[in-house]
Amino acid sequence: MSEFRPGTAGQVAFLAELVGQGLLLETGVPGVYGRNAEFEDVREQLAELVTRAVSPEAPERLHFPPILPRRDLETVGYLKSFPHLAGSIFAFTGTETQAGEQYELACRHEDWSDFQAMTDLVLTPAACYPVYPVVAARGRLPAGGVTIDAGGAYVFRHEPSGDPARLQMFHQREIVRIGEPDIVGAWREQWRDRAVGLLGGLGLEAELDVATDPFFGRSGRMLAASQREQELKFEVLVPIAGPEPTAVASFNYHQDHFTSAYGIELSDGSRAHSACLGFGLERIALALFHTHGLDSGSWPPDVRRALGGS
Amino acid sequence: MSEFRPGTAGQVAFLAELVGQGLLLETGVPGVYGRNAEFEDVREQLAELVTRAVSPEAPERLHFPPILPRRDLETVGYLKSFPHLAGSIFAFTGTETQAGEQYELACRHEDWSDFQAMTDLVLTPAACYPVYPVVAARGRLPAGGVTIDAGGAYVFRHEPSGDPARLQMFHQREIVRIGEPDIVGAWREQWRDRAVGLLGGLGLEAELDVATDPFFGRSGRMLAASQREQELKFEVLVPIAGPEPTAVASFNYHQDHFTSAYGIELSDGSRAHSACLGFGLERIALALFHTHGLDSGSWPPDVRRALGGS
Repeated sequence: MSEFRPGTAGQVAFLAELVGQGLLLETGVPGVYGRNAEFEDVREQLAELVTRAVSPEAPERLHFPPILPRRDLETVGYLKSFPHLAGSIFAFTGTETQAGEQYELACRHEDWSDFQAMTDLVLTPAACYPVYPVVAARGRLPAGGVTIDAGGAYVFRHEPSGDPARLQMFHQREIVRIGEPDIVGAWREQWRDRAVGLLGGLGLEAELDVATDPFFGRSGRMLAASQREQELKFEVLVPIAGPEPTAVASFNYHQDHFTSAYGIELSDGSRAHSACLGFGLERIALALFHTHGLDSGSWPPDVRRALGGS
Repeated sequence: MSEFRPGTAGQVAFLAELVGQGLLLETGVPGVYGRNAEFEDVREQLAELVTRAVSPEAPERLHFPPILPRRDLETVGYLKSFPHLAGSIFAFTGTETQAGEQYELACRHEDWSDFQAMTDLVLTPAACYPVYPVVAARGRLPAGGVTIDAGGAYVFRHEPSGDPARLQMFHQREIVRIGEPDIVGAWREQWRDRAVGLLGGLGLEAELDVATDPFFGRSGRMLAASQREQELKFEVLVPIAGPEPTAVASFNYHQDHFTSAYGIELSDGSRAHSACLGFGLERIALALFHTHGLDSGSWPPDVRRALGGS
């Protein structure tokens, strides 16, 4: 059950500071905030920083809206691992009389869910998900595979929290590598170290760790143990507010999880592998505001230079 | 009932051309497409064009994720006018056993909606909606009111269609003016003419017309007639594919609809009015590709100059 998870005292205090400074704007729902121009400028500079870092690989840029065909969520088995985080989209399909009844309930802020039916859409849970069916539809991969920049897509996680670094919707800047297993593995290794350098260059105390996904339930604990044992997931952790550092980037080796689901093949017809690297842009921005202060104009010159690219 | 609305022959052919050229990527759900780098570059240049046009007014930039507290949708009465277009977000809140049952159904692409419950979030239907509660929370307006640039936010409309210009999720570049009724009215008048010039400068056959919103049902027809009589909505129409030109921008005078819902007051305590102007960025991009050809590199030099701002 995805109940509200209160923040620690430090997280609650940091959220209050961010709101007080106008960087975040409260909406009444935890994990859903507006942002002002200063926050957005930092987020966009971070996106540009990733663009520059990845440019030598000349990735193909593909952009998708933050909604995904429900069928794709089903195909990749997301509901096995993360049923608690998924968001599905419902809509009204009734008569005019029913619309009136629904409206009356809504006016009184009462329950109008009986008038809503499931659509063929869900919220995108990770920026790379729409990429695989598109790549699969093109047929066998070229030798060496493909590198896709899935942009700074909005992704959804149903996990209301008092921690300002745990948003229900945030920009995931994700690069996807699909190809021969050894090439994909080497690509992830290389990026793992580069990303620590990239974030360290912003004056953040970035450290790398083997990690696991927040799998659901008891069977999830087994999935997590296996994931850790095989070192399939690494994260870059940075102190924000709270007792433990927070993951702001992750490097995931999917093996053939997605490529099997969609039948993505190498040029010789054998199964491709995939990996992705994802930067949580709002989290990195929050880490910068936490580390260097709430006024980005007074950040250290080398941090501003690294962000501005000049 | 929001059923699939087939496109005309011209719209279906244009969609096929866009997909064939790689500008749009099909996902399997009508009205939900990926876009390639060329399409996105045009969309971003259009966003910049609006930024430059609005910069003399020095609007306050506020950015919101494409999800909105359900309570706000209820507060502004969206379900009275547009129940057929709204999207609500559901999520899983069950036990581990139920998660297993849900997963089994999903694996077979069967109905798992019984395991989903309504959350306190909906998809944002218009970029200006999150702005009003934030402005209201600040207290009375300064004299002259406020101008807010709500960014190029993603908005959702549940209207699957074969027309590539009718997307289920698209970027609405919206500027909101809240203040004294005469100031707000004059602002909308001024932008109505400027927007026609802005789009005409891109080589588009832009024409202005009094318009109505797609209100739901019989009572909606009365709302539309009243809206038209009071000239509360104008649209800029441009030929894309299809027999009629398509609205790519709109100018809406809300009178006190939103300001009453949130109690937004002028400095003297009287009720403020609001208006917004919204540019549909994907639609304008599609109009450019339709008018000037599918290769943006070969568009007329004056169009490219107007887009690039140089």
